[in-house]
Amino acid sequence: MLVVMQSQATEEQIRAVCERIESLGYKAHPIPGSGRTAIGITGNTGTVDIASVESMPGVVECIPVSKPYKLVSRDVKEENTIVRIRTHLGDVIFGGTDVAMVAGPCAIESREQAFQIAKHVKAAGVRLFRGGAYKPRTSPYSFQGLGEPGLKILAAVREEFGLGIVTEAIDNESLDLVEQYADVIQIGARNMQNFSLLKRAGRSRKPVLLKRGMSATLDEFLMAAEYLMSEGNYNVILCERGVRTFSDYTRNTLDLSVVPAVQRRSHLPIVVDPSHGTGRRNKVLPLSRAAVAVGSNGLLVEVHHDPDHALSDGPQSILPEELEQLIREVRQIADVLGRAIN
Amino acid sequence: MLVVMQSQATEEQIRAVCERIESLGYKAHPIPGSGRTAIGITGNTGTVDIASVESMPGVVECIPVSKPYKLVSRDVKEENTIVRIRTHLGDVIFGGTDVAMVAGPCAIESREQAFQIAKHVKAAGVRLFRGGAYKPRTSPYSFQGLGEPGLKILAAVREEFGLGIVTEAIDNESLDLVEQYADVIQIGARNMQNFSLLKRAGRSRKPVLLKRGMSATLDEFLMAAEYLMSEGNYNVILCERGVRTFSDYTRNTLDLSVVPAVQRRSHLPIVVDPSHGTGRRNKVLPLSRAAVAVGSNGLLVEVHHDPDHALSDGPQSILPEELEQLIREVRQIADVLGRAIN
Amino acid sequence: MLVVMQSQATEEQIRAVCERIESLGYKAHPIPGSGRTAIGITGNTGTVDIASVESMPGVVECIPVSKPYKLVSRDVKEENTIVRIRTHLGDVIFGGTDVAMVAGPCAIESREQAFQIAKHVKAAGVRLFRGGAYKPRTSPYSFQGLGEPGLKILAAVREEFGLGIVTEAIDNESLDLVEQYADVIQIGARNMQNFSLLKRAGRSRKPVLLKRGMSATLDEFLMAAEYLMSEGNYNVILCERGVRTFSDYTRNTLDLSVVPAVQRRSHLPIVVDPSHGTGRRNKVLPLSRAAVAVGSNGLLVEVHHDPDHALSDGPQSILPEELEQLIREVRQIADVLGRAIN
Amino acid sequence: MLVVMQSQATEEQIRAVCERIESLGYKAHPIPGSGRTAIGITGNTGTVDIASVESMPGVVECIPVSKPYKLVSRDVKEENTIVRIRTHLGDVIFGGTDVAMVAGPCAIESREQAFQIAKHVKAAGVRLFRGGAYKPRTSPYSFQGLGEPGLKILAAVREEFGLGIVTEAIDNESLDLVEQYADVIQIGARNMQNFSLLKRAGRSRKPVLLKRGMSATLDEFLMAAEYLMSEGNYNVILCERGVRTFSDYTRNTLDLSVVPAVQRRSHLPIVVDPSHGTGRRNKVLPLSRAAVAVGSNGLLVEVHHDPDHALSDGPQSILPEELEQLIREVRQIADVLGRAIN
Repeated sequence: MLVVMQSQATEEQIRAVCERIESLGYKAHPIPGSGRTAIGITGNTGTVDIASVESMPGVVECIPVSKPYKLVSRDVKEENTIVRIRTHLGDVIFGGTDVAMVAGPCAIESREQAFQIAKHVKAAGVRLFRGGAYKPRTSPYSFQGLGEPGLKILAAVREEFGLGIVTEAIDNESLDLVEQYADVIQIGARNMQNFSLLKRAGRSRKPVLLKRGMSATLDEFLMAAEYLMSEGNYNVILCERGVRTFSDYTRNTLDLSVVPAVQRRSHLPIVVDPSHGTGRRNKVLPLSRAAVAVGSNGLLVEVHHDPDHALSDGPQSILPEELEQLIREVRQIADVLGRAIN
Repeated sequence: MLVVMQSQATEEQIRAVCERIESLGYKAHPIPGSGRTAIGITGNTGTVDIASVESMPGVVECIPVSKPYKLVSRDVKEENTIVRIRTHLGDVIFGGTDVAMVAGPCAIESREQAFQIAKHVKAAGVRLFRGGAYKPRTSPYSFQGLGEPGLKILAAVREEFGLGIVTEAIDNESLDLVEQYADVIQIGARNMQNFSLLKRAGRSRKPVLLKRGMSATLDEFLMAAEYLMSEGNYNVILCERGVRTFSDYTRNTLDLSVVPAVQRRSHLPIVVDPSHGTGRRNKVLPLSRAAVAVGSNGLLVEVHHDPDHALSDGPQSILPEELEQLIREVRQIADVLGRAIN
Repeated sequence: MLVVMQSQATEEQIRAVCERIESLGYKAHPIPGSGRTAIGITGNTGTVDIASVESMPGVVECIPVSKPYKLVSRDVKEENTIVRIRTHLGDVIFGGTDVAMVAGPCAIESREQAFQIAKHVKAAGVRLFRGGAYKPRTSPYSFQGLGEPGLKILAAVREEFGLGIVTEAIDNESLDLVEQYADVIQIGARNMQNFSLLKRAGRSRKPVLLKRGMSATLDEFLMAAEYLMSEGNYNVILCERGVRTFSDYTRNTLDLSVVPAVQRRSHLPIVVDPSHGTGRRNKVLPLSRAAVAVGSNGLLVEVHHDPDHALSDGPQSILPEELEQLIREVRQIADVLGRAIN
Repeated sequence: MLVVMQSQATEEQIRAVCERIESLGYKAHPIPGSGRTAIGITGNTGTVDIASVESMPGVVECIPVSKPYKLVSRDVKEENTIVRIRTHLGDVIFGGTDVAMVAGPCAIESREQAFQIAKHVKAAGVRLFRGGAYKPRTSPYSFQGLGEPGLKILAAVREEFGLGIVTEAIDNESLDLVEQYADVIQIGARNMQNFSLLKRAGRSRKPVLLKRGMSATLDEFLMAAEYLMSEGNYNVILCERGVRTFSDYTRNTLDLSVVPAVQRRSHLPIVVDPSHGTGRRNKVLPLSRAAVAVGSNGLLVEVHHDPDHALSDGPQSILPEELEQLIREVRQIADVLGRAIN
């Protein structure tokens, strides 16, 4: 259910409607737009008794929302959501005309490794650094990440280089820590339907980068974002990272069509991860160009100065010099589309 | 790495080898077989210095294990693992010649609903009752389960009808509770690679029923079980519940070939869930027959006395009278294969 | 469009309606049922002017058919279609209560090979022999079949052993020959949407065994059968042979749920090919049992006396003694379902 | 098997080696390169007796080719294959630095329709016109194309507008005609493994545009091209048009990673069809940009001036004005990559 307010509705009127909704046992989500404010109602297990809301001052109409997702829907909020990450090097904007860049190693292995890569990432003009301290690995015998010491290294990277930090949380315990250290909380593909984790992340004040699950339909992907938003976290960045198909020459099949598909249905920004999406170093550059050309709001790229000795996902990490070439090429493409790299 | 002991090796010798392994910083997993004991070594991030182990009394040889999974592998343990669930109505055996039956509603909705269905389940001769108190749902606005009150209802079902209880845990918090109330902890398909939850379940003393992820390869499925076993929980039951494909006339594509494939590679029992595997009431009966014919160690079936008003997954729940027919038919098939329903 | 005739409609009335339909530029397909005759109308590119038909003697009503397929639909013909293949060893029935068996090598390699395998096939009690003279192979450098000499060997097998012959046509030219030599024309998975070939086979007087395409949806599968029927060939046997998925431990994923799904929508018989469906010798037996248990109208199995030296698909061919065991086991399962092996 | 000739080998020496190979019962494929000529040997069912070839004048070495494909492989021919289509408006080059454009309706419906669209296509600067006279349709009741009258319309389009013609053949009969009328013979996705048709097209003198099958692996795709080349037709253009996955918001999943993957393995040009690849008008433009950015050698786009009344595939056809915008946008992207639209 969605309550549409008059464009000249006052703050008091909006607040009053929200209070009425909450008094009826539901949750109100005021969604300010450029012209008008809408108020999403969630938590309704059946039909909401809206008669008392519809007649309140400032209300235009109450419309039922037929799509399974509400808060993520462009029906509810027409303008793009802008997620702004403040870093010492300047703000990074997801959802505007710019292409936001995130780069770094798959996993944080040591202070030396992180600093060396961070130096290259900064030199390439990138302002957000990614790197996992908690790694969900298929095998219990694979390197699982450094844990909190890894987060401390990330904090030192921010301190030293001014880079913003994007890092993954894999359960409620790690989220408690990631939330303290990171600028953006990443939820990985394997946890896209870990609803308990989504609810916890939805109660965080930090933005969330949500990766599409390996075989998630578009509706499932948007519903996972709805979990985050329905708990109150509206700073959600979606991320396509390849889906599982019969195709065998790439690790996953990067589904670039999802970018315009998401942008039609939702106001949330969507970025592309060509590193996981292909699993092959030699495909990261062409698919990065394609991602920007298709309209992606950003790129998430794995970089390693010594990928052959990386503790995880070496074969898909590009070298620092390849990152520079990548930035150069995607900048040119962004440029002809009237966009800038950020 | 696997240490193979002599068939006449004593308990003391086995214990001594385990202690040596642990003193080297690894974890030892003694795996008793009918003829001999093998000891799996896990936790090795590199090469294990085995010289000191190989020369110990009672040791035949130390063999490196090339497959990514170890403890789940039939190479390590040739005999089938038998998981025995004790109920007031008698033991239910997974992994022997019998076909173990589990039936009940998708979700526990109320005491009345649970009792009514439990009565039918018991009448049909089934001794394990399934029903979710925590439901992972695609939408945050769908019924999410009753939580602990649902677990209390399940405990009351056990008290009243003598049925054993199988129910799902969705995060570490719910697992703490499920562990207290259930006889078998279920890990759902969406959480098959929730490694944090797997590790926690691996430290539980209760058997775990692990569902295959929606797009999990066989290796990923077995590796998820390896997570459970590497933490010390050897009572693992695998469950095929359909995979995601392009096919659109069933909710998922039930992959019955995985049953003989698992049985060749692993000693763990594997059961089939034709309810989620097809998502269609009218396909549960024929696919149950097929599952038993292909050699499944058991069946997990959703039953509801009023599926049209079920709070979740009504369209795939069979009616109590259909359960009786199902049991009758699979019993006949089990019979010609020299197996019994249990 | 479907014309339903009165149950007491005479032959003359039915013939008159058909003539009127054809005079309007359409094709009439009288479909006799136990109670009444229906007449399918095909070839309509738009709306049929049925006013003149609806008022003819013997007509009950004219109903538009909303499903994309008509002639294959159970809406149009409620009773199962029975496809009867006459052999010197007796009739083989597809679509009745019996389970029809077809066995033989993937490819005909020589007279000696064919005769040796035919001897075993007959000894096992099977009356239909399969073997390809034309082989669609992924590589142009692989053995492509013996062509017409292979068909002559198949004719000799029929002569010598009394077995009926099932063999594949891959284009219009080979179909002209296959039609002369075979008892059943097989259309392979790769040609399921070779509509030119389907139309040609639809004009043949010989029954057609149509294999499901590697990624065919149920509707596409039934529409391919509709191509055959719309040309006048009503003796169509469908065959599930596995679909392509991400799953990697079998060559294809055998989709047994399609059996009850087809049987609900269509009156045509459907059989299962566990050899191509799994691509693994050790899975043919369990999946054959499962196919019969799920309700398949028959089995198509590859047998070779020396699979390691077979010119094609050796790894999925079972040995003659395994065929005997297979027949024994599926007979027992058929038996408890009130069915016989045929 | 591949015979590598010395860089200074004479025409006579090359001819002599080819004759020796053919005298041994094989087929020789001389493949001129910038530095040296290689000669592919096909038709070997077992081991070739190469001793007599290896010692001939001008031969460097005979190397066995381990990959299943030979003639399509970059191992055999390092330089890109250039397929040049001559039109009255100038040559169109596939495989060079240019991006070759092909546009037109899905099906030829009438002379008026074809001419109207051709006018727009020419006005947009495109020199190759596509349009089907033979349409493989899922349903026998759908419009199947005009047949030869459609080909005559295409010939008139060439006459009137100077556009080159790309049109599909669906069987050997239609190929006989298509070959006479078209400049490029298209083989559709459903026929990618219609080996009989591939062999026939391989014997044509006209270039072939080969579409990837709906669930074809990369090896199967290249092997289908190998069928064409092994019959002597070296003018092959590959075409990605989307693969079938679980994804449901586009008709197919456009797999852009296949472009760099093909370009690493093969010297053949590869183009992208974003119309079939997405099945949605609103996705054609962004995916066209992405295809050019990823490095595609060309685009194949469906255009219709009145898509709502198109006899086939209206929902994926763009409007003439959208084609102009598309050309404008992909030209800019091509430009920054140092490429031109052609």
